[in-house]
Amino acid sequence: MKDVIVIGGGAGGVPAAIRAAQLGADVAIVEAGEFGGLCMNRGCVPFGHMMLASNVFGAVSFGKKLGLDFHDVTRDYAELKKRQDELIGFMRMGVSSTLKKNKIELIEGKGELFGNGKVSVNGETILCKNVILATGATWVKPDFPGSPMEEIINGDDLLGADDLPERALLFGTSPWLLEIAQFLHRFGKKVILATPDKSILPNESKAIRTRLNKALKTEGIEIKREAEITDIKKQKGGLSVALNFKKGSDTLEVDRIIHIERTPSLKGLGLSSVGLDENADFLEVDRKMETAAKGIYAIGDLTGPQERHYSHLSSEGAIVAAENAMGLNSTMNPLTFTRVLFTQPQVATVGLTEKQAKNAGHDVITGSAPYGMNPLGMLLSENEGIVEVVADKKYGEVLGAHFVGTHVAEMAGQAILAIQMEGTLEDLARASFPHPTLSESLPEAARNALGRHIYLP
Amino acid sequence: MKDVIVIGGGAGGVPAAIRAAQLGADVAIVEAGEFGGLCMNRGCVPFGHMMLASNVFGAVSFGKKLGLDFHDVTRDYAELKKRQDELIGFMRMGVSSTLKKNKIELIEGKGELFGNGKVSVNGETILCKNVILATGATWVKPDFPGSPMEEIINGDDLLGADDLPERALLFGTSPWLLEIAQFLHRFGKKVILATPDKSILPNESKAIRTRLNKALKTEGIEIKREAEITDIKKQKGGLSVALNFKKGSDTLEVDRIIHIERTPSLKGLGLSSVGLDENADFLEVDRKMETAAKGIYAIGDLTGPQERHYSHLSSEGAIVAAENAMGLNSTMNPLTFTRVLFTQPQVATVGLTEKQAKNAGHDVITGSAPYGMNPLGMLLSENEGIVEVVADKKYGEVLGAHFVGTHVAEMAGQAILAIQMEGTLEDLARASFPHPTLSESLPEAARNALGRHIYLP
Repeated sequence: MKDVIVIGGGAGGVPAAIRAAQLGADVAIVEAGEFGGLCMNRGCVPFGHMMLASNVFGAVSFGKKLGLDFHDVTRDYAELKKRQDELIGFMRMGVSSTLKKNKIELIEGKGELFGNGKVSVNGETILCKNVILATGATWVKPDFPGSPMEEIINGDDLLGADDLPERALLFGTSPWLLEIAQFLHRFGKKVILATPDKSILPNESKAIRTRLNKALKTEGIEIKREAEITDIKKQKGGLSVALNFKKGSDTLEVDRIIHIERTPSLKGLGLSSVGLDENADFLEVDRKMETAAKGIYAIGDLTGPQERHYSHLSSEGAIVAAENAMGLNSTMNPLTFTRVLFTQPQVATVGLTEKQAKNAGHDVITGSAPYGMNPLGMLLSENEGIVEVVADKKYGEVLGAHFVGTHVAEMAGQAILAIQMEGTLEDLARASFPHPTLSESLPEAARNALGRHIYLP
Repeated sequence: MKDVIVIGGGAGGVPAAIRAAQLGADVAIVEAGEFGGLCMNRGCVPFGHMMLASNVFGAVSFGKKLGLDFHDVTRDYAELKKRQDELIGFMRMGVSSTLKKNKIELIEGKGELFGNGKVSVNGETILCKNVILATGATWVKPDFPGSPMEEIINGDDLLGADDLPERALLFGTSPWLLEIAQFLHRFGKKVILATPDKSILPNESKAIRTRLNKALKTEGIEIKREAEITDIKKQKGGLSVALNFKKGSDTLEVDRIIHIERTPSLKGLGLSSVGLDENADFLEVDRKMETAAKGIYAIGDLTGPQERHYSHLSSEGAIVAAENAMGLNSTMNPLTFTRVLFTQPQVATVGLTEKQAKNAGHDVITGSAPYGMNPLGMLLSENEGIVEVVADKKYGEVLGAHFVGTHVAEMAGQAILAIQMEGTLEDLARASFPHPTLSESLPEAARNALGRHIYLP
């Protein structure tokens, strides 16, 4: 009898297993594919690595402004891919060895619930007190007219190919398309990005959306909104795609359509054996990460729609689920949910937008500080960067912070801690952040909200 | 009768004047040189700009690992300098216009105390209720055997010259020498760095010191410790410098010796007219930034030795002094003092080191997380990066955090907020920072201190 069986060994499952083991549990972790999951093997890590390459082009282009001119670039994608695959292999070994060091039993196979307290894997049934479901999400098959076709690829196909497509249409609502588009563009490929939404990042604030949009456009990345693929035809050397979009239509000649929409992996998990619905859009959990079935926890991508698929959310839920499975009383903090994008400029948004805060009944006060008024931002020519803060007026309680610009993925932690620790605008306004940093814009945005900014005009 | 006269229009004086004006004060600000002070005109900003150029070389060198090879670099220092000077000019205009917009009287001239409630400038005496002294620091003239010589230069001389020295000895205890050394080295110049101290950054933790030292050494920057210049001779095309150092001595052929030690600018301020001592090492102030003379406040570099000369400390003191001058009751937070260095890797240290915490009587608990175990750190080959946390054992109160590595100047704010808000290791351990970021190492370091790290081996 195991104390905890974790089904899924990715960004959620691994920390869940380790935390449970730390609390004295006898734990098994079941993984059908590769330990490390999507994030490490086919998601955040390889695409993060590609974004680092993308950033190098950004640095070189910025260097020109500083009198540093580098000529004759050689781009060797095979070299990039080789390093990437080696690093992933190394990380995967690290995951297995850390799991084993924590005395966790690693089981390779497909785990499935088999009624309460039972998990079936490789034809055997294992008894357990608690289950943590962490199987993540799977690719949605596109239903474009004319699909399926091998030229319509997902993230795995893109990463698995030896070469990058010369001409690609990136279609869908996933924010990661923006990262891939910028990478391909900087690698010298022709890209068009098309979203059925009204804009990129439709749930974020207007400043974030429009500033990122402008930065990408200025760089030469074409973005079509309210787009729909109406026809796809194979033709010599690629595809001919008929695309409708806001105020226009076009026929594109491309080699690949990249489509990376994802949906929670609920099927085949044996959910009905414990009274849960595998046909739901996602698994509902409470703040303790427990499903409607007692002792069955679920974390990560399983528990929300695609716009909540962030691996840090998985690992936060992992700790909460493991602690509750082992008798502690832990809860998720719904206020610090952070969305992040590793384009250049980066995007990081924490907590509530102004609109969400108003809808939640808050008397909202906001402030902002553009990077263009920040000394380091000026040196970096960071014209599109900005920090926005959203707070409740009464006590100045910080409800959200929204960043676009260089380094903002690393700055997000400041807002996360402020919200987590129930900080106020006054706390942010008085923070003495080092100079010259982009971080200085956060206190200035808080002072702006309080009507006492120092450096803004 | 002015409510507040600020003497010195730099990183401290400017926010002090603006904050006082916001609180309804009739304010004058007196500046003998250029508004913006050392930091903007001849310090953080131009050197920060040069570090950005330095970072471009770092990015290109990293790019090689990713299959991106840039050939034939052209380095045009004149172009770099031109952009730098234009940006500084633009910022300086911004400072003046922001001061004027706040209805602050700008006075160009040398301000001097003339007894209590009186400031003399340009031969006139102005009455006032409060004075905020913010004149910063000045270059210490080196007393090397054989000096003065025009080849021994300070930061102003370096920035003022049209060309960079081909061969430079950087001598002294200032941490900024490390930034300049790396910039010159990456710009293709020959540099040797020599410090009379036992190591670089002698007050920081062993991990920070040794990891930065190793990174610079690996890059090819020579560092001599416990060094002393015993003789300097002019010779054709430069200087011959006899240098003693730990376990050796050498005679160096260089074009310039760069010496940028600084001391508080107490002389000529009329301090004796209000009973203060202009021969002190620095002006003592209380936590309200008030000197022993009532109504006379002092902020920034004036109030501490060189190792406390950080412009963010000046601007923090500025707000405190201005608020107290206007009848509020504000205090400096001595716990969040942050040291930062924009080398590559960067250094940021916040609050107390383990040693300082022990000396202050704390029962100390520490934890650390190397970047080499952080997914983004691995992708960046960040072998020298690390995050260390220092806390009091009883409640886990965070006392300090120490970072070396990429982006740490922007990550420091997380530790600053945690300490400012009296956060604990538990708060840091539960922070859900975005993935993949280097920031994730801070919660992991806190978990390491608590004996429950998740990803460390």
